[in-house]
Amino acid sequence: MRHKLFAVVAATFALSACVNTTDNAAASVKSNSAKPKNIIMIVADGMGPAFTTAYRNFRDDPATPVVEPVIFDDIFVGNASTYPAQVSGYVTDSAASATALAAGIKSYNGAIGVDVNKQPVTSVLQRAKQLGLKTGIAVTSQIVHATPAAYMAHNESRQNYNALADSYFDDRIDGNFVANVMLGGGTKFFERTDRNVTAQFIEAGYTYVDTYDKLATVPAGENVLGLFAPVGLPWVLDDSRKNRLAYLTKHAIKHLENDNGFFLLVEASQVDWAGHSNDIAAAMGEMHDLNLTLELLYDYVQSHPDTLVVLTADHSTGGLTIGANGDYRWDPKWLQNLQQSPAEIAKALSDADDPVSMVSTAFGFDLTDEEAAQVIALAQLASLKDKLQGIQTLLDVRSNTGWTTSGHTGVDVEVFAFGAASNHFLGQYDNTYIAKKLFNLLPAESKTASQ
Amino acid sequence: MRHKLFAVVAATFALSACVNTTDNAAASVKSNSAKPKNIIMIVADGMGPAFTTAYRNFRDDPATPVVEPVIFDDIFVGNASTYPAQVSGYVTDSAASATALAAGIKSYNGAIGVDVNKQPVTSVLQRAKQLGLKTGIAVTSQIVHATPAAYMAHNESRQNYNALADSYFDDRIDGNFVANVMLGGGTKFFERTDRNVTAQFIEAGYTYVDTYDKLATVPAGENVLGLFAPVGLPWVLDDSRKNRLAYLTKHAIKHLENDNGFFLLVEASQVDWAGHSNDIAAAMGEMHDLNLTLELLYDYVQSHPDTLVVLTADHSTGGLTIGANGDYRWDPKWLQNLQQSPAEIAKALSDADDPVSMVSTAFGFDLTDEEAAQVIALAQLASLKDKLQGIQTLLDVRSNTGWTTSGHTGVDVEVFAFGAASNHFLGQYDNTYIAKKLFNLLPAESKTASQ
Repeated sequence: MRHKLFAVVAATFALSACVNTTDNAAASVKSNSAKPKNIIMIVADGMGPAFTTAYRNFRDDPATPVVEPVIFDDIFVGNASTYPAQVSGYVTDSAASATALAAGIKSYNGAIGVDVNKQPVTSVLQRAKQLGLKTGIAVTSQIVHATPAAYMAHNESRQNYNALADSYFDDRIDGNFVANVMLGGGTKFFERTDRNVTAQFIEAGYTYVDTYDKLATVPAGENVLGLFAPVGLPWVLDDSRKNRLAYLTKHAIKHLENDNGFFLLVEASQVDWAGHSNDIAAAMGEMHDLNLTLELLYDYVQSHPDTLVVLTADHSTGGLTIGANGDYRWDPKWLQNLQQSPAEIAKALSDADDPVSMVSTAFGFDLTDEEAAQVIALAQLASLKDKLQGIQTLLDVRSNTGWTTSGHTGVDVEVFAFGAASNHFLGQYDNTYIAKKLFNLLPAESKTASQ
Repeated sequence: MRHKLFAVVAATFALSACVNTTDNAAASVKSNSAKPKNIIMIVADGMGPAFTTAYRNFRDDPATPVVEPVIFDDIFVGNASTYPAQVSGYVTDSAASATALAAGIKSYNGAIGVDVNKQPVTSVLQRAKQLGLKTGIAVTSQIVHATPAAYMAHNESRQNYNALADSYFDDRIDGNFVANVMLGGGTKFFERTDRNVTAQFIEAGYTYVDTYDKLATVPAGENVLGLFAPVGLPWVLDDSRKNRLAYLTKHAIKHLENDNGFFLLVEASQVDWAGHSNDIAAAMGEMHDLNLTLELLYDYVQSHPDTLVVLTADHSTGGLTIGANGDYRWDPKWLQNLQQSPAEIAKALSDADDPVSMVSTAFGFDLTDEEAAQVIALAQLASLKDKLQGIQTLLDVRSNTGWTTSGHTGVDVEVFAFGAASNHFLGQYDNTYIAKKLFNLLPAESKTASQ
């Protein structure tokens, strides 16, 4: 009954792609637009609906009566459910959700590119490589973290970082490496005493870089491994590049562009980490880096209209709410002038000659007497974790931000898309539909391999 | 820059209505579909995105591996921002948001159909009446509560319930009463010692009913005032009609249908009240009544394709999260067999001979020893509020539900639409756009008045 109605509405829209696709997405949807040459899939890890609204408010110009739209508002197209395979209940982890987004199947929490029976399932990135497109990943976590790993490899557990790094080198698709470009963190997993995967990639012809500046020197079209941190990159608030994801994305594209097209997976990995830490300041910083990435890609698609960009989240993290504790108030202005992340502020607390002055400078606003007393008490604490929580709480109280968990929540996530064939992503669907649709939008037949 | 992109995408969709409309909605959007004869606007008070996802999970059939879609999934079309006028910050109350949805302007929290200068602004319901359509409201709160009041009247404060009841009788539009049909609660405000507004409506020719059964006996096409409770209706979990909103909606339509068309405001008022009370069981009950209303209206639109139905929320309430406390789990099965609301269970606690057995029967599942001990302790408490909170906490722990506030939060809300001209509501926009669009979809010129 229900599906019929939406189909009628969809027909009215002249949007055959818009039918509800929960049951059998790939089979029931007809493309009404040219297939894209290039596909850029962006996962904003942990970015539930409260994060995008919060970011709009965070960017609001108080000199005007309206809350100005941000780029997310202009590219919004739909909503996706995120639940994992039934065995894992209604709240997904990043591994199961990335497997759903990458391969179009539901699996258990922890699964990397494998189904509930731990059998490998092909991702859209792997399929793109089979078809002769160039492929890449650009992320702010270690490049073997759950989301990129589900596009790149197969493993029964997301915890097996070393094995995943090995897979990135060992697994071949028709004799080729899975990805031409891999940018993010993770030297800890690639440069080990038992095996140096980085050295093996260099031996195999990849250009290796370990600083942002060196990345800019690599000639276009190279195969590149770029690892810029032992594990994840620093919080963007602390990083030398305040647009690090946009920068990595730009350079990934530079190396991936070719006549056969490319598939690039971009992940704003640390929105999720900010959510886990219940850190609203870090969350807004990571959202801003993602926003800059979208603005870059918007300009790119203007000059490359054969490119499709799809953005979604894998789940929401932290139970973030805009307002809390019975108070009808959210004050993002206290988050707008941070000079470093709460984590770095917490680390610096014990050694500060004048903790109150240090925190005030780092926050970018004067502390009240009550807040100053709290900071002095925090500086005495032995546990870094407690200090961090104290710093975060000061900002939560100022901004009136709410959290319910250090984990994930099950709310549907937004979907954003623009460029070639982006009309296919309108409406409400399950997250597996996104992968199924991307499979459909890849070339029907293999091109002459680009590598 | 941003708006251009979405306009390009919208053109690709052949959807001129789909452009971002935050700046000047009414001016920039062209209709590409016939105007509806009838408009049914539904406000699900407090229904943020977590409520719709939670309801889908609540309705899930565990015998299948997928989470079955509910009707919300099939009629989803967009997202709306909800912030009030700048003077009230980023978190709206129901009055400011209802004024935005009804009249298309931002006002201060507490404002009923007036702008920031406390000057009256015309609602779409009032405009419909000016144009000769029949008008009505069907709600589960008192009919003078913030949401219906913003469509019906003008007052500087939502608290002025008696004055609002007077307005419903005293305010005339070209000599006619504002609404032909008014169904909900509120005898306390209409039948007062200082003035009996109900008696005045009867005198003026309205049929008055005070029970659901009597409503069914009124011949079609009458002007009707139906007040079924002193203030709001009972929780649906406790009501004699488990589909009370669907029932009121069906009867409202029966009396409103006429050659000139009608405008009906429906409100699922108590989703919000469940959110304020942090009551997940009551929330799911109210969502189910709304779901039944949508299923009724779906069938209605199939046989009346000249009718437009638009549903949105005015804001989210309670900071509800699906999962909490670091646990990747949400268990709606414990909410599926309640025999009455937590509020009624709490009231019955002190007088129960066997509180544990009573609660177990009311919950529909056996209590653990620990839960039984908690119930016995709750029964001893003096405060009904504390007892209620204890009962709610038992269900929160079972289901692993999170809350951050007894008030509202600022997250964007979903928009749903089907029927004639429903394509105008695709995309992301501010809630004022909904009113602006509905004004555009009303007839251009006045029809011969239906009353």
